[in-house]
Amino acid sequence: MICVLAGGVGAARFLRGLIQVVPAADITAIVNTGDDTILHGLNISPDLDTVTYTLANAIDPVRGWGLENESWTAMGALARFVDARPQGSSAAPTWFNLGDKDLATHFYRTARLSEGATLAQVTTEICKSFGVDVHLVPMTNDRVSTVVTLAQDCAAGSAGTEITFQEYFVKHQHSVAVRNVHFAGASTASALGLDALSSAQTIVIAPSNPLVSIAPLRALQGVDAALSKRRDSVVAISPIIAGAALKGPADRLMTELGHECSVVGVAKLYAPICGTLVIDSADAHLAQHVEAQGMRCVVADTVMSTPAKSQNLARVTLENAT
Amino acid sequence: MICVLAGGVGAARFLRGLIQVVPAADITAIVNTGDDTILHGLNISPDLDTVTYTLANAIDPVRGWGLENESWTAMGALARFVDARPQGSSAAPTWFNLGDKDLATHFYRTARLSEGATLAQVTTEICKSFGVDVHLVPMTNDRVSTVVTLAQDCAAGSAGTEITFQEYFVKHQHSVAVRNVHFAGASTASALGLDALSSAQTIVIAPSNPLVSIAPLRALQGVDAALSKRRDSVVAISPIIAGAALKGPADRLMTELGHECSVVGVAKLYAPICGTLVIDSADAHLAQHVEAQGMRCVVADTVMSTPAKSQNLARVTLENAT
Repeated sequence: MICVLAGGVGAARFLRGLIQVVPAADITAIVNTGDDTILHGLNISPDLDTVTYTLANAIDPVRGWGLENESWTAMGALARFVDARPQGSSAAPTWFNLGDKDLATHFYRTARLSEGATLAQVTTEICKSFGVDVHLVPMTNDRVSTVVTLAQDCAAGSAGTEITFQEYFVKHQHSVAVRNVHFAGASTASALGLDALSSAQTIVIAPSNPLVSIAPLRALQGVDAALSKRRDSVVAISPIIAGAALKGPADRLMTELGHECSVVGVAKLYAPICGTLVIDSADAHLAQHVEAQGMRCVVADTVMSTPAKSQNLARVTLENAT
Repeated sequence: MICVLAGGVGAARFLRGLIQVVPAADITAIVNTGDDTILHGLNISPDLDTVTYTLANAIDPVRGWGLENESWTAMGALARFVDARPQGSSAAPTWFNLGDKDLATHFYRTARLSEGATLAQVTTEICKSFGVDVHLVPMTNDRVSTVVTLAQDCAAGSAGTEITFQEYFVKHQHSVAVRNVHFAGASTASALGLDALSSAQTIVIAPSNPLVSIAPLRALQGVDAALSKRRDSVVAISPIIAGAALKGPADRLMTELGHECSVVGVAKLYAPICGTLVIDSADAHLAQHVEAQGMRCVVADTVMSTPAKSQNLARVTLENAT
């Protein structure tokens, strides 16, 4: 059995390759829910949905999120309410796009949660609906929220203001300076998937953002301890390539939060819990600096621009796991 | 100022005519919310929306509910979840159609209510968004639910089972026998619009279902008392024409709940609170039986098949109010 710690797009693409290498039913993916939010009264789990839709071959290939062949009628109709809402209201958030087909997933999740189902149960049901055989597990059934603190006065607010991850990521397009990230609720939440971490043959940390996609999982009680115990069986793939993120704010956040924005910076973050780091060929010259952190270093082509490249990265990753 | 007690379609069509006769801003409509429901986590207020959409000339003219030029993408996408839900779950209710554009209204209402706004505030904001100048007031800001008790074993459940109004009306197409209707929460809810009932020049009871559209309003503390005090200024329009309802279960419910299914049965229900009943020309021969209930009886063309006929009925109704 393989266990994967997963965020959104990078993890989804890795898993898409992994199911070509090992049976989907032998894979457990523990997925970040720190990005989860409630909009229009609907429970939205962006990373879970990105992974599910990708594995179902239903993801929009251009946007990288949401469903393909999507329409935006409900969102369009929301615009009329923007001027009617009173000052201070955040109703009618038109900055977070939800496609019409995608809405059905949130409808189902919201209805099941309100019936008392756990997020884990609902996730299993949604996976079944989409024909996804990978065992997707939300990192917790409890509410944990990734909160970002602004470093300076900007469009999102004054320095020191805390905003939700989706406000940071979507509303402000991660273009504002950040001085802190924390995971509200993490200290009291119960981690899921600890059994998978104990029993998995190999644990893969997907090429997701270490600071806002993997860090929420690690903030939960017992996760870092479980990973440390299995350190030799843990292999991570660096989401930083040649000092930059392929997508998203990982590079910017690494720098802003005081980390080296390179595979070496990633190695330093993961060294306590992970024995092997897979880095891109573009960073081959940094392999010995990674090894200097006490990790094995594997050089591979990590840019998953096609399904074949995802599959190849999955194969190389598993082959190099001890 | 004119105050109208309103349910859904019949009231909406009457109001559409009334705004041709008196300025919209001089009209307060107190609208039934006993049909309100929560689906997919969204707060749905069917009668409020039917009235709003009709007054905004945005209603679908064929269906009589929802928005015109509507699409059903989200509903269509919900179908995949039906087989995944566990037994006993009522998530993914595909029997209640919500159009994609219509969803935006429920999104806005749900978000505002969750921010702490009252239903009355949200209703005012939604009316503003749709350019509706009639002052629409939900009958209460509190939760009141119309509950229907089945008279015999049927597709909806065994005799004695209580189901929500929308299950009765939409899911089972009001084709099941009923032995009781009650309004859960009505005894403790605070009625809205009592000031309008006191100060209005004329109070109109729209041609809505007396037992499930007008009765919820009357079940609220103070409403019947306020109407009784103004009895001479209250004029009702019978929704029963020649012993039948134009649409919906009013005729069936009148019989099942032990009332005469005729304008005389309507007169008996309204006599304590209403001085004048407008009946259709088809029932002219029953005028003296209506008057025998202690009411004035006005005979008019009450079938509002066109906007012009709505306007004419509104004019005749106001002219005959004392």
